[in-house]
Amino acid sequence: MTSARPLDVLDKAKGKRIILRLKNGSEVTGVLQAFDLHLNIWLEDAEERKDDKVVKLGSVLLRGDTIIFASPATE
Amino acid sequence: MTSARPLDVLDKAKGKRIILRLKNGSEVTGVLQAFDLHLNIWLEDAEERKDDKVVKLGSVLLRGDTIIFASPATE
Amino acid sequence: MTSARPLDVLDKAKGKRIILRLKNGSEVTGVLQAFDLHLNIWLEDAEERKDDKVVKLGSVLLRGDTIIFASPATE
Amino acid sequence: MTSARPLDVLDKAKGKRIILRLKNGSEVTGVLQAFDLHLNIWLEDAEERKDDKVVKLGSVLLRGDTIIFASPATE
Amino acid sequence: MTSARPLDVLDKAKGKRIILRLKNGSEVTGVLQAFDLHLNIWLEDAEERKDDKVVKLGSVLLRGDTIIFASPATE
Amino acid sequence: MTSARPLDVLDKAKGKRIILRLKNGSEVTGVLQAFDLHLNIWLEDAEERKDDKVVKLGSVLLRGDTIIFASPATE
Amino acid sequence: MTSARPLDVLDKAKGKRIILRLKNGSEVTGVLQAFDLHLNIWLEDAEERKDDKVVKLGSVLLRGDTIIFASPATE
Repeated sequence: MTSARPLDVLDKAKGKRIILRLKNGSEVTGVLQAFDLHLNIWLEDAEERKDDKVVKLGSVLLRGDTIIFASPATE
Repeated sequence: MTSARPLDVLDKAKGKRIILRLKNGSEVTGVLQAFDLHLNIWLEDAEERKDDKVVKLGSVLLRGDTIIFASPATE
Repeated sequence: MTSARPLDVLDKAKGKRIILRLKNGSEVTGVLQAFDLHLNIWLEDAEERKDDKVVKLGSVLLRGDTIIFASPATE
Repeated sequence: MTSARPLDVLDKAKGKRIILRLKNGSEVTGVLQAFDLHLNIWLEDAEERKDDKVVKLGSVLLRGDTIIFASPATE
Repeated sequence: MTSARPLDVLDKAKGKRIILRLKNGSEVTGVLQAFDLHLNIWLEDAEERKDDKVVKLGSVLLRGDTIIFASPATE
Repeated sequence: MTSARPLDVLDKAKGKRIILRLKNGSEVTGVLQAFDLHLNIWLEDAEERKDDKVVKLGSVLLRGDTIIFASPATE
Repeated sequence: MTSARPLDVLDKAKGKRIILRLKNGSEVTGVLQAFDLHLNIWLEDAEERKDDKVVKLGSVLLRGDTIIFASPATE
């Protein structure tokens, strides 16, 4: 276990749907395409939920410093 | 897929209209001219929407640290 | 004692449940899988508590800059 | 287009009037003298507008991290 | 005096109780185990006080960027 | 003009009175002694104005990241 | 004057009382022992004033990024 790194959890989620909680209080879900060490994240088929409102985003690049956490969607 | 990087999604959007959500709650749309690793973004023919108010900006350089996400406009 | 580093306290907590207090006021608990120098943290079996509301998160990667403190759960 | 950089839009605006939107909600306009990679910006003949109040600033150096966007004034 | 560094005050407090004031307004006290240049701090036997409420934390790692000041408890 | 740098405007203001607008909404004026690349600024004979209240500061070192802009006082 | 650096004003204040204004609105005074380039500051015989309330701190290490300005106390 000692050699695991925290971002490994996202490696395993590539091509799958993940949930992002943002610092502004909204949630964005989408299919993970790519991410980098800053936690910049590219999602496809994304949508944003905030206060029960849902907005379709399609392709989206999220800036890492706006993210609180990223969680692979449970299957 | 392993070699994709998150900013690749913007490479494909050059010369096309994209939508930016900013940390102050406003949205800016425009035609993507250039961007860098900090997500500084140059748009042409840009306009800003906030609380149903629209302001024409023309050419604009957005500082990367004000951006929550960037999304290519759906065609 | 002089050679101890603050993150050593997390090394000893790997595989055990820890509690994270986040800057947005919520608490996340989960089993510590991995962390890095930025305090990015990967938890399994995680859940979030905020204002008496509990949300199951499962696997989650928390961005280090959202964390106030991390504390191994008392046994 | 691939070799353009976002700050090129400011290079073309040197000696001309630009508009800056600041994170505190105010707008500053002035004649662009110089800028750097942090988006620190030196303006001459500058003025600040906030809530319909206008303040003459003359020469001013704006710190880059207070800027949301910079836009060359339309002619 | 010229060669003293500000973090020396914490070196002398190792193994003793210190008080931390956090940016969210709470105070954490505990026995100092280790700290680093970012002011990440590991405390044992810690407790948090906020608005007259006290919470036992036990072992805790505080992220340096949440700290306003650290003060050795007076004896 | 191409070789000018934004901080040059402060070089010309050394020994003269400048006005600083701070992120907390206050203004500080004083005679510029020295500054660095982070915009840390040393003023003499300084005073702070906030909400029509004036406080004499004398010598003062302002941390660069608290500054919105610096402007040489008009003569 | 060209070779002066802004932190020189603190060099001259070592062993003397200084006043710090913090980003959370409080003021801390104390005898300056040491400081570094980040403006981390070690004070002795320190006290904090906020909204007319005074708290004795004794020895204290202040994290540089919480400081708006530092000013040698007038004699």
